[in-house]
Amino acid sequence: MKKIGILTSGGDAPGMNAAIRAITKSAMHYGIQAIGIRDGFEGLMKGRFVNMKYTDVDNIIQRGGTILGSARCPEFKNAEARKSAVANVKEAGIDGLVVIGGDGSFRGANVLAKEVDIPVIGLPGTIDNDLYGTDSTIGYDTALNTIVEAVDKIRDTATSHKRVFLVEVMGRDSGFLALNSAIASGAESVLIPETITDIEAIAAQIKSQNKGRRSSIIIVAEGDEEGGAMEIMAKLRPHLENFKLRTTILGHIQRGGVPSYFDRALATRSGIMAVELLMAGKTEKMVGVKADELITVDLKDAIEKKAIPKVEREELLAKLLTK
Amino acid sequence: MKKIGILTSGGDAPGMNAAIRAITKSAMHYGIQAIGIRDGFEGLMKGRFVNMKYTDVDNIIQRGGTILGSARCPEFKNAEARKSAVANVKEAGIDGLVVIGGDGSFRGANVLAKEVDIPVIGLPGTIDNDLYGTDSTIGYDTALNTIVEAVDKIRDTATSHKRVFLVEVMGRDSGFLALNSAIASGAESVLIPETITDIEAIAAQIKSQNKGRRSSIIIVAEGDEEGGAMEIMAKLRPHLENFKLRTTILGHIQRGGVPSYFDRALATRSGIMAVELLMAGKTEKMVGVKADELITVDLKDAIEKKAIPKVEREELLAKLLTK
Amino acid sequence: MKKIGILTSGGDAPGMNAAIRAITKSAMHYGIQAIGIRDGFEGLMKGRFVNMKYTDVDNIIQRGGTILGSARCPEFKNAEARKSAVANVKEAGIDGLVVIGGDGSFRGANVLAKEVDIPVIGLPGTIDNDLYGTDSTIGYDTALNTIVEAVDKIRDTATSHKRVFLVEVMGRDSGFLALNSAIASGAESVLIPETITDIEAIAAQIKSQNKGRRSSIIIVAEGDEEGGAMEIMAKLRPHLENFKLRTTILGHIQRGGVPSYFDRALATRSGIMAVELLMAGKTEKMVGVKADELITVDLKDAIEKKAIPKVEREELLAKLLTK
Amino acid sequence: MKKIGILTSGGDAPGMNAAIRAITKSAMHYGIQAIGIRDGFEGLMKGRFVNMKYTDVDNIIQRGGTILGSARCPEFKNAEARKSAVANVKEAGIDGLVVIGGDGSFRGANVLAKEVDIPVIGLPGTIDNDLYGTDSTIGYDTALNTIVEAVDKIRDTATSHKRVFLVEVMGRDSGFLALNSAIASGAESVLIPETITDIEAIAAQIKSQNKGRRSSIIIVAEGDEEGGAMEIMAKLRPHLENFKLRTTILGHIQRGGVPSYFDRALATRSGIMAVELLMAGKTEKMVGVKADELITVDLKDAIEKKAIPKVEREELLAKLLTK
Repeated sequence: MKKIGILTSGGDAPGMNAAIRAITKSAMHYGIQAIGIRDGFEGLMKGRFVNMKYTDVDNIIQRGGTILGSARCPEFKNAEARKSAVANVKEAGIDGLVVIGGDGSFRGANVLAKEVDIPVIGLPGTIDNDLYGTDSTIGYDTALNTIVEAVDKIRDTATSHKRVFLVEVMGRDSGFLALNSAIASGAESVLIPETITDIEAIAAQIKSQNKGRRSSIIIVAEGDEEGGAMEIMAKLRPHLENFKLRTTILGHIQRGGVPSYFDRALATRSGIMAVELLMAGKTEKMVGVKADELITVDLKDAIEKKAIPKVEREELLAKLLTK
Repeated sequence: MKKIGILTSGGDAPGMNAAIRAITKSAMHYGIQAIGIRDGFEGLMKGRFVNMKYTDVDNIIQRGGTILGSARCPEFKNAEARKSAVANVKEAGIDGLVVIGGDGSFRGANVLAKEVDIPVIGLPGTIDNDLYGTDSTIGYDTALNTIVEAVDKIRDTATSHKRVFLVEVMGRDSGFLALNSAIASGAESVLIPETITDIEAIAAQIKSQNKGRRSSIIIVAEGDEEGGAMEIMAKLRPHLENFKLRTTILGHIQRGGVPSYFDRALATRSGIMAVELLMAGKTEKMVGVKADELITVDLKDAIEKKAIPKVEREELLAKLLTK
Repeated sequence: MKKIGILTSGGDAPGMNAAIRAITKSAMHYGIQAIGIRDGFEGLMKGRFVNMKYTDVDNIIQRGGTILGSARCPEFKNAEARKSAVANVKEAGIDGLVVIGGDGSFRGANVLAKEVDIPVIGLPGTIDNDLYGTDSTIGYDTALNTIVEAVDKIRDTATSHKRVFLVEVMGRDSGFLALNSAIASGAESVLIPETITDIEAIAAQIKSQNKGRRSSIIIVAEGDEEGGAMEIMAKLRPHLENFKLRTTILGHIQRGGVPSYFDRALATRSGIMAVELLMAGKTEKMVGVKADELITVDLKDAIEKKAIPKVEREELLAKLLTK
Repeated sequence: MKKIGILTSGGDAPGMNAAIRAITKSAMHYGIQAIGIRDGFEGLMKGRFVNMKYTDVDNIIQRGGTILGSARCPEFKNAEARKSAVANVKEAGIDGLVVIGGDGSFRGANVLAKEVDIPVIGLPGTIDNDLYGTDSTIGYDTALNTIVEAVDKIRDTATSHKRVFLVEVMGRDSGFLALNSAIASGAESVLIPETITDIEAIAAQIKSQNKGRRSSIIIVAEGDEEGGAMEIMAKLRPHLENFKLRTTILGHIQRGGVPSYFDRALATRSGIMAVELLMAGKTEKMVGVKADELITVDLKDAIEKKAIPKVEREELLAKLLTK
């Protein structure tokens, strides 16, 4: 193993830089040159490669986003278009690749592994936590902390003004962020795509609990089948005429920010392992974590199987309501 | 002076609790009973009064929102409706009042001062900083820090993905938050209600500067005459077809949160001064700050005159653009 | 089950309040009265009991420390002294107890369980993570985040001034905090009580790596067998005459603070489970977490067995050094 | 004006990077090349100059420390040693200089201005706020926020355990940080070098107020004439035998960190003004701020006169104590 390529792809996630740093530094430790590929698969196709130096990754462990850049790259699904990527990888002498991203990124990685015939390792870098086979993806913990901190602020206003706030969080297909941030922020209710949303039941619950309460927070996953926070508010309004309803859509602040302890440690450990897996000739594996130990999962499984949040935790919120 | 009433009114602002604490504790120091009035002028009309005890204000200096609650109360403009407030104040024996809020709240306070004939002092509690006669209102510095921290997060994503982000901040009538957060967050452009927004000029600027750039941030005051972030994006889009535009509306996270050093210190100092002003027989004054010294301003001026942000600071952003 | 007592004991940890809230609210959900016991075992002996109301635990999920208070209570080891505790518990009709604290607290709890003959459940509340049978104690994740954030700040100064900083973190008997914060903060070296500290090797490492570096951070567990940060600095100095060495002892800021997402979620889930375990007649169990699932551990094991950090992770730091 | 040199000197302060960015970018705006001088006056003597590019200052507004590095440089007081600095400046063609630092740095700047005969502007970059002629130095607001946040955490533990905490903050000669952080953190007492510390009076105060209190915080400026926190604790102990006293020395976390809104905005505005002052031929001036407006002060005054905190504010704490 002489040259390891690194690319970040899909939505950026806090901890991606910590992973890039760990891969670059541990590659140097083993006498391997790390090659940074700019802007994800797009950079692969256009040959935007840089030899990573020590100073490139110095002091980036604490920075959000990705210094390599990321991009959505639909062209990469096209076999003809991928030929330039294959040629670039060969010409650069890259003989191992680490792809940091979500399932879409892994799909691209897997195809490439076969076409160039080099080993490929995936690191799960996404705030959504929707990857099969790992307790946690890189970026998920930071996003949860960002959401919980934001809801704390909204609670101040909600309580001061006796309001019901609907807070929309990310999660187009998945309720991981919504469900777990709801528990940690002391929310009164949560709406996720994985369970059926019953507008009347939520209204009834708000009504019953608000006797002695000054505020309620309802966390809404953007992908809930009844709609986002604005739509849910419109549906709730006829049932809650005497309540002051408000919405906030947290939006892009959920992606960025200084990564948390957990995401930095996970990214660092996973990055080193990725290099060592490549050196050991492993390929098409994702590095995951279970009970604080790193594990490997077949990339195929990470792509094909779906991670499901523990939906039964929704019931916890009901046990914490008081009338 | 035997009993001082305290009420918070209008939108909540970080530092209101620090002010309530300072008023309550310094009143106790001078042998005066502080009376908390719940939910602003509404509580005044409904007689929701509580004798403030030391333990009520212990450990609240660091908490956002207002422990007394706040509410918009349009009925208070009605002279007939105010009669109950006047009666309640008299019955409770309140012989001085501190109102913490914005210009609307001060208007109510001023009317009441005359109808009950007790001295009234106003503390400027609003994140908007739109009160005449003071360098800074209580809550403004915290809101700026919240915005700047949020933009830092968005910058991570914008740079990772080569995007132009429009970030909408509060300010229905005023560009204080937008203008000053734009300077401190390193934004490339800012749109405020006080100056004429030229969509084509902004588009031209984004185009020219983006040669070597990976991201641009445009801060939009919600009250800009061309619209909020969504509308501005729609207007910019035809001019910026090759750019990836995105919006985020920061929303209610701007109101809450742990107050900053500045807001806590200002609120504490102002709260003590409010008590001492009442004891000295002063009335219809607002406590402001100039060059780190507390001053007083006639409430009348605070209500009638308008604070204008230093719009010439917009030019600073242009001096920081590079092509 | 009619009355469940709750006490927090030993050093306070972020998330204790989230646990108290969850126990109180879920007890109410099941028609059980929660009884708060003030200041740990001391309050048990002195009968300082309060009936927990809904409003006592409202809006405390985000607050550090413990609203019930905590205290070290050596008298509780004395059988004679414990008699008053036994009598108080019986008189109050407490028929189940949740103790939140570390192994010392669990020892007291276990003795009491036998003397009063009521079921007792332990929740691991300590920043040190030194409890057998759980991936994580309540408070550990927040403390790690606090440390990592502090080291980020120190790195700014270290890099600006070309310095070597020794940062002392908590851990009298255990290297959990030191080891894992070192990985996540990008520290160059770590000293923990579980492994032998070789002063000359550390000096050699600092020398070799500092060729192209502007700073080094060495994390020191306070209980390292070679001493705390001050002592280590004195021992390093003769070997590193051309380096600017500095120390910082993080101290008590590591205990407090707004709990992280992880600690709030863990505390909330564990608190509900504690109530349900008591209702199911379980006793002398600790609620732990493995791979994101709650589990129970015999309190006896939690007391007698020792949790060991994964010391082999120390090697990761060496793999990230560059010369 | 063709080339402007920039150097940071003395202790690093949050906001220095924002100033470097503003100077570099506004210089580019005016067609001037900014020259970064590494490691303060040491770099001036050794000719460590770099042509600043746009990408060097991109995305640094939010970073603590100084990307140029800083160093104490006692040799610079030696006229003979300074000759190399003079020669280097001339050779590089630097025809204007901005020095960011404290009064020691300004002294060096002033001497140099005369020896090289180029205009020099000073920006006050220090967390200590001990510079004459400005409401606030760059870095002061961030340091206050860091201290207040740390004290919030310590308060959690102090209240949980009924303790008296002595918290030592920076300020070898000056009580600015101690005094103002004490007000904003709700501390019960403060010890600063500018006023006479009466140990017995403090002990008496703690005793009287602790009747109903669970905690007390005493902020100690490191330069108090009775000693730092450890010494003060030793002196207090005989008077407070029934109290649990603890100390924490905040140390170097006070210097670093993401700069606050205020420091970023002040640094940005001041940096632009520095460039414009040089272009206008001004020299030996410091850029300060009064009532939110930038002003200039003679460097001579900034060096010779002393800034004194408003010591009468100490009395505010006494007005907030309750018995």
